[in-house]
Amino acid sequence: MADNRPIGVFDSGIGGLTVLREIWDMVPGEGTVYFGDNGRAPYGTKSKSTIIKYSLQNMRFLEDQDVKMIVIACNTASAHAYKVLSEKADIPVIEVVTPGARAAAKATRNGKIGIIATKGSVNSGVYKDAVERYSAPGTEIYQQACPLFVSLAEEGWWDNDITAAVCREYLTPLKEAGIDTLVLGCTHYPLLSDAIRKFMGSDVVLINAGKAVAEVVRDTLNAGSLASDGIDPVRAFYTSDEPELFEEIASPFLGRGLPAGTKHFNTDRYEV
Amino acid sequence: MADNRPIGVFDSGIGGLTVLREIWDMVPGEGTVYFGDNGRAPYGTKSKSTIIKYSLQNMRFLEDQDVKMIVIACNTASAHAYKVLSEKADIPVIEVVTPGARAAAKATRNGKIGIIATKGSVNSGVYKDAVERYSAPGTEIYQQACPLFVSLAEEGWWDNDITAAVCREYLTPLKEAGIDTLVLGCTHYPLLSDAIRKFMGSDVVLINAGKAVAEVVRDTLNAGSLASDGIDPVRAFYTSDEPELFEEIASPFLGRGLPAGTKHFNTDRYEV
Repeated sequence: MADNRPIGVFDSGIGGLTVLREIWDMVPGEGTVYFGDNGRAPYGTKSKSTIIKYSLQNMRFLEDQDVKMIVIACNTASAHAYKVLSEKADIPVIEVVTPGARAAAKATRNGKIGIIATKGSVNSGVYKDAVERYSAPGTEIYQQACPLFVSLAEEGWWDNDITAAVCREYLTPLKEAGIDTLVLGCTHYPLLSDAIRKFMGSDVVLINAGKAVAEVVRDTLNAGSLASDGIDPVRAFYTSDEPELFEEIASPFLGRGLPAGTKHFNTDRYEV
Repeated sequence: MADNRPIGVFDSGIGGLTVLREIWDMVPGEGTVYFGDNGRAPYGTKSKSTIIKYSLQNMRFLEDQDVKMIVIACNTASAHAYKVLSEKADIPVIEVVTPGARAAAKATRNGKIGIIATKGSVNSGVYKDAVERYSAPGTEIYQQACPLFVSLAEEGWWDNDITAAVCREYLTPLKEAGIDTLVLGCTHYPLLSDAIRKFMGSDVVLINAGKAVAEVVRDTLNAGSLASDGIDPVRAFYTSDEPELFEEIASPFLGRGLPAGTKHFNTDRYEV
């Protein structure tokens, strides 16, 4: 018996599209409803209580779209709000921190792992804890907040001199620590992969959690008998700012043209 | 008869504190209630309709604090929402675009004026129109959006190599156009004054609208017989994110220590 309800995916804005593209590639027959909270983005500089409130509102909206699963496609929201959301939901909730942490623990050869993320994610300590949980004892973990990276990704400065200088500023301590694995702990960062790789050197493995998250989605669908019949899957997009603005900036993150018809919705009308 | 009601000031977050400090200096006997919408900041990347909605909500909150005047201490909100707010308010509404534009028109000697601001402000065209309105015919106006400047100001990178490189990237066209006056059209930008001045050269006059806005506040108080008796003025702060977070990042913008006791309030509860 197929379950043709779509998968609900939310993010603070457009960064989660780097996760959505991996879900589309991994389970192409599944429908998806994406909500980008662009009207309140970014989340990375905001407090835990605020992010929990926004995430609960976003989840309520996706539940109202009759989704069969929630994907928190935002590292800051995953770090701060996953626990609350998974307790409140009657459907599976997938977050992006654990899959990336597990992939990093698996990838390292020298036991030195770096994590770059927003201030919110770094301060939460959730990423560090997750990497530790999956790593051999004695693994050394180095965290670095990289607040400018989000602006650079959104400005389209993915690999220029300024981005190189910002990489040098943020990443020098990680390079000097001799890490061999670096978690891109924010959904914006994959767009800066080339610049990050140039600075860190090609020996350092960059972990983009998107693919690992898509694997968890696939496994959860299979384990829960939630897979669809693959016929004509829906591809819906909602944003809390203006659809035109969303459509203007989305494509580089999605890695392809965005289907037309993004709709506006304010999740702030949900009392949580 | 003194009017001891406070002046209401709002901004998307902390940038408006660069205006508040000028108001304190200009009319030190006046009470102020400041609201920073940090929970939804920044405004500069968001759409006109969203900014009008947020600005109306912020104004409603300040009106509920029984203020005698509203100061929109945010250039993007001034550009997009001033017209609507001034129509809806029963008290004077002051915005920050016109005072800066007027000061620039007065300062230029060669008739070439530059404006740097957020994408939202630049796209609105409101700044350009305002400078034109106060300028001699034939004045040349050059606009440049500088989205990275907000992140640089908040990161505390006010005058380092990266900021110099970003200045070169954004400001080269203005320098080559030969402007002699540059409007800092976003309340975050005064923190980058040194870096901007180094790149543009000391002959270029930088217009920080804060002081010009404070003069309008003073004149409006006098014209409307709204001045207070100057005894024990209130200094209240509210934020839509966590007060601790606000207090952590506010001081450089305010140019002094923030008085304790910032309170939390979500203006999104106002139906507008």
